[in-house]
Amino acid sequence: MITRAEILDIKSLATKQGREELGAFIAEGEKLVGEIRNSSLRIRRILQTKPIFADGELISEKEMERISQLKTANAVLAVVELPKHKLALANPAKNLVLALDRIQNPGNLGTIIRLADWFGISDIVCSEDTADCFNPKVVQATMGAILRVRVHYTNLAEWLSAQGDAKVYGTFLEGENIYNAQLEKSGVIVMGNEGQGISDEVAECVSHKLLIPPYPADRCGSESLNVAVATAVICSEFRRR
Amino acid sequence: MITRAEILDIKSLATKQGREELGAFIAEGEKLVGEIRNSSLRIRRILQTKPIFADGELISEKEMERISQLKTANAVLAVVELPKHKLALANPAKNLVLALDRIQNPGNLGTIIRLADWFGISDIVCSEDTADCFNPKVVQATMGAILRVRVHYTNLAEWLSAQGDAKVYGTFLEGENIYNAQLEKSGVIVMGNEGQGISDEVAECVSHKLLIPPYPADRCGSESLNVAVATAVICSEFRRR
Repeated sequence: MITRAEILDIKSLATKQGREELGAFIAEGEKLVGEIRNSSLRIRRILQTKPIFADGELISEKEMERISQLKTANAVLAVVELPKHKLALANPAKNLVLALDRIQNPGNLGTIIRLADWFGISDIVCSEDTADCFNPKVVQATMGAILRVRVHYTNLAEWLSAQGDAKVYGTFLEGENIYNAQLEKSGVIVMGNEGQGISDEVAECVSHKLLIPPYPADRCGSESLNVAVATAVICSEFRRR
Repeated sequence: MITRAEILDIKSLATKQGREELGAFIAEGEKLVGEIRNSSLRIRRILQTKPIFADGELISEKEMERISQLKTANAVLAVVELPKHKLALANPAKNLVLALDRIQNPGNLGTIIRLADWFGISDIVCSEDTADCFNPKVVQATMGAILRVRVHYTNLAEWLSAQGDAKVYGTFLEGENIYNAQLEKSGVIVMGNEGQGISDEVAECVSHKLLIPPYPADRCGSESLNVAVATAVICSEFRRR
């Protein structure tokens, strides 16, 4: 049983404003909710249409359809407290850190969080106008990686400027072929907006310009790669060495 | 001006059945339609809400909204004849060919076609139950690459079996670390379904099992990469050598 007011509260978590007001986000699906129960995140309540979790409350399928953000509602939905991560944990002097400049598409952001997890990158620092990582579409696309990767939001140019001697890598058409470039074990990899790339302000902070060369290098085909795909190729190159 | 019957015909091109019946697909946006005009594809008609192309017909914004498959309709939509590509052009004895086994998500398929174009792969051979490459969502996600990459549909296991000595690569959890593996300049790279991976029947045709190792190699984090992301990392490794 769930009240009308509770349904409205949960539905409001689909928006960033709602999540900030209530300090929570939603996660759907037995696998993801199971992973959250085994993580350090705090679950406020679990709603389910079948008795799956001992601490879950049974609701009807109609009620689930009303609160679900998926096209086809799942049997479980959890309301989870928004975690707070200290930005200081992102330390490009010691580790590889991803920085996202105005990534807009929730699917791209989710895919990037998932691949960061695969390539052992624990921190992603985003510009304030990057899509919100607790958007339900992003949470689903991360396939659970949102529980392991810390995503921070800040003024990206200011944060980069404050990173001292840390190397800051970014991809540009005039960059050095990444396959031949010297890549360190720590530093920041900056990825830019889907249409416009890295903003001028952030580009000024990039110390090492890289390029993923097309094949063959002189062909005239696609002008760019999808940003999640480009991030993957770059992270793979860093980790291969 | 566009008749009601014509609107219904164009709307039917959103489905595979409609496209097969009318032998056409739709492409939206000034950039993409401009590229198609400069390609070898045959355009049946161009509909536009502003005078953009000399050979385009003016329609109202309301009419455009009715025929568009985009959330926000663009100013131009073209009805284009489905190209027919000879499967024999996909020759893994001479070139690198991608093979897709039951890829379901249109966004993933579009992203894969786009990155194949970037990495100079001209042919993609798909299992018959892979998403259709002329689905409007796929066409948009390819960002024009659909004009340069030939996508074929066939019985994948049969086609692979008929490729003689060509190397057939696929990713498996028990595969060899791709960064250390010997990779040839030609052959087939098989990528499997988003949830289930490569089917048993197709797996039997794989001669070289590869693995993109997580970092560090023994970490327990995400269990897999998105299929478009994994395809990109593999193609990048092949082309880097």
